[in-house]
Amino acid sequence: MANIFEVPQPGNDLLEKANKVRLASIEISQTENQNRIKALNFMADYLEKNSYEILDANNADYSSAQKKGISRALLSRLKLSKLKLNSGIEGVRKVGDLADPVNQVQIKRELSKGLFLERKTVPIGVLGVIFESRPDAVMQISSLAIRSGNGVMLKGGSEANLTNTAIVKALQEGLNASGLDKNAICLLTSRKDSMAMLNLEKYINLIIPRGSNELVKFIQENTRIPVLGHADGICHLFIDIEANLEMALSVALDSKIQYPAACNAIETLLLHKDIAPTFLEKAIPLFKSNDVKLIGDMRSVELGVKYEASLEDWKTEYLDLILSIKIVDDLEEAITHIQKYSSKHTDGIITENSHTANKFMNVIDSAGVFHNCSTRFADGFRYGFGAEVGISTQTLPPRGPVGLEGLVTYKYFLKGDGNIVDDFSSGKAIYTHKDL
Amino acid sequence: MANIFEVPQPGNDLLEKANKVRLASIEISQTENQNRIKALNFMADYLEKNSYEILDANNADYSSAQKKGISRALLSRLKLSKLKLNSGIEGVRKVGDLADPVNQVQIKRELSKGLFLERKTVPIGVLGVIFESRPDAVMQISSLAIRSGNGVMLKGGSEANLTNTAIVKALQEGLNASGLDKNAICLLTSRKDSMAMLNLEKYINLIIPRGSNELVKFIQENTRIPVLGHADGICHLFIDIEANLEMALSVALDSKIQYPAACNAIETLLLHKDIAPTFLEKAIPLFKSNDVKLIGDMRSVELGVKYEASLEDWKTEYLDLILSIKIVDDLEEAITHIQKYSSKHTDGIITENSHTANKFMNVIDSAGVFHNCSTRFADGFRYGFGAEVGISTQTLPPRGPVGLEGLVTYKYFLKGDGNIVDDFSSGKAIYTHKDL
Repeated sequence: MANIFEVPQPGNDLLEKANKVRLASIEISQTENQNRIKALNFMADYLEKNSYEILDANNADYSSAQKKGISRALLSRLKLSKLKLNSGIEGVRKVGDLADPVNQVQIKRELSKGLFLERKTVPIGVLGVIFESRPDAVMQISSLAIRSGNGVMLKGGSEANLTNTAIVKALQEGLNASGLDKNAICLLTSRKDSMAMLNLEKYINLIIPRGSNELVKFIQENTRIPVLGHADGICHLFIDIEANLEMALSVALDSKIQYPAACNAIETLLLHKDIAPTFLEKAIPLFKSNDVKLIGDMRSVELGVKYEASLEDWKTEYLDLILSIKIVDDLEEAITHIQKYSSKHTDGIITENSHTANKFMNVIDSAGVFHNCSTRFADGFRYGFGAEVGISTQTLPPRGPVGLEGLVTYKYFLKGDGNIVDDFSSGKAIYTHKDL
Repeated sequence: MANIFEVPQPGNDLLEKANKVRLASIEISQTENQNRIKALNFMADYLEKNSYEILDANNADYSSAQKKGISRALLSRLKLSKLKLNSGIEGVRKVGDLADPVNQVQIKRELSKGLFLERKTVPIGVLGVIFESRPDAVMQISSLAIRSGNGVMLKGGSEANLTNTAIVKALQEGLNASGLDKNAICLLTSRKDSMAMLNLEKYINLIIPRGSNELVKFIQENTRIPVLGHADGICHLFIDIEANLEMALSVALDSKIQYPAACNAIETLLLHKDIAPTFLEKAIPLFKSNDVKLIGDMRSVELGVKYEASLEDWKTEYLDLILSIKIVDDLEEAITHIQKYSSKHTDGIITENSHTANKFMNVIDSAGVFHNCSTRFADGFRYGFGAEVGISTQTLPPRGPVGLEGLVTYKYFLKGDGNIVDDFSSGKAIYTHKDL
């Protein structure tokens, strides 16, 4: 793994860019809510003004990519139609409608007479975002960064360099027109720089990778900067003996086929041995008619699943219309399997027994534990966050789908009138600890 | 740095221990508040029952350490008097009085008809704690771990091995008597194991180091497990031109001498050039009479500070009665100095001008920004958290002094009645996103 990408030391040029973003981020961290909303509107205006230039740039990127024989999936992500651009611009304005994540008071407390503590949310500083060739991501992530008072260094896939450059130029013009430092948004265009970003721990406070599992894993292992994201999304659904059969079939199907390339789609279905025969009798033709390839353990192969699973299957995120099936003796065996193979993203259970459901949800240590619903609901928009910055599978917060709250931190503001600690040792002063 | 300690791969023995703690942690994570409080009371009872054994063990440790010629400061930390033990036991019971950090509902929302989301706090899992020869820390950290439903692997200084072993035996007996798995608390006694802990990312969810800056830094750089703690505490106090002089002297003195070995004591005093002469005229004799060695930049040496500072001084955490002083032209120069040298722990300003204070507090990116009070208030107990697990100087939460909330995370519980995402795409269902 360590050799697939190189992580060079940042050159002077990159350090200078990073320092400009850092300084701009300090400025924007001080701005009022209204100014940040104004900046977003200007950014949208300038994207509109520059839309022909942006679409031209995208045409050029697209032609080069076609000539290079790039995959159809990648080409489709790269293509920026007028419609997609307009929807991206609309998205930038809509980010302004999201609640301000900055300056939220979390603690307000009198510690002692005349001594007041506040814990308030503040921007993180500078975000480093590494993503694949989706030009719409540039607009989305830049607007979320500005909304939350952060600076951002972006590195997109090189196939989209001309498009991204045109978009960032428009965004910077918008920032500038609104009175903010345009350096708060910075685009890097060489892969060398994108990897050197991993060594910018003095400038970048959070890395958000949006790419292949392999890239995310590499980034997690090669930077001391905190990374918001996840590599694998190996999600499970357990069909308990007390499941409603129709519900089990419907939820299993939705969890697999609604969007199989998503991280919250299931890869493995666990079936209680006593429900497996009736379930599979209906599920095998249902999945077949939806082009899902089923791979199973020996017991499920005996019940009609066509392909036999290898050990590797339980560890594989197919991101495709493939589903592995394992028959278990009971809830405990299902839990043990999930504890062993889950990537701690989202795991669900179908059962009418609430005691069984609670046991499952309490014991499974994943960001999302679901009962009688599709794993596909694990998503910031569906959770009502208004935006999704990423999904984290680490144990510590932020965990699961992360909205704008993932782009802020907090600090403690303590205001006194000359208070000293010695007065408390000597008994002259006492702590009141009164929440206000 | 990479060579001062070795980080060996964990042996089978350690892996087996770690797995036992992990299993016990899953059990304890499911226990009700009352059971955890009961366990704490039993732990305290068994410490009392075993107090002679514990004190005997400590006497033996103390004698060996004396023979080895260990420093007086270390000996004093190692010594467990009957009084210190009783106060530690009392501390274990008091942890039961702290509010339950587990099962706190943070979000409760109807996503759609019949589909309900809850975000609740849950224990982190297993804590790995590496600390120096303070036997009282074993009681304290174990009780905080159990309070918050976590398992804990402890590694104390080898000088206290007999004492720690006796304490952990009593704590385990208490756990067992309360009906919980005694393996939730585990003591490692060899340095090899303590370093191998850093490779136990599959078993340990959070490392809490309590030791020298050097040890903490090494741990941060040599584990992929999140680390709660900080290496340096380089705190600053800026005396603005508009400071109340008496207040400035009193707060500066308290911030330095009240407990100079603490991480929240100041290392550097920044003086506005126009207040420097009058301030130093009073401060130099005041600090001198309190045995504080003053080291200053050229301008402050011209005003009577005896020793000249080198570049290294601005980066040094003295942890001693030494204070570096620098004279600055204005607020901006003070801010620039702090941005360059602060360890982002706690930095303060003394001024009567609230505009200046706000500017300072907003721009300085430290966990604590203080106005007109001593930096020594940066502490979990003083903030009213009831306990302090550690102080974090990282940007992302948890930041600053961390109470029990640093020992829990959260997860998302989603309960439905067969809800599938496809119904939302087809328009059959809509999101309500109604907070409950």
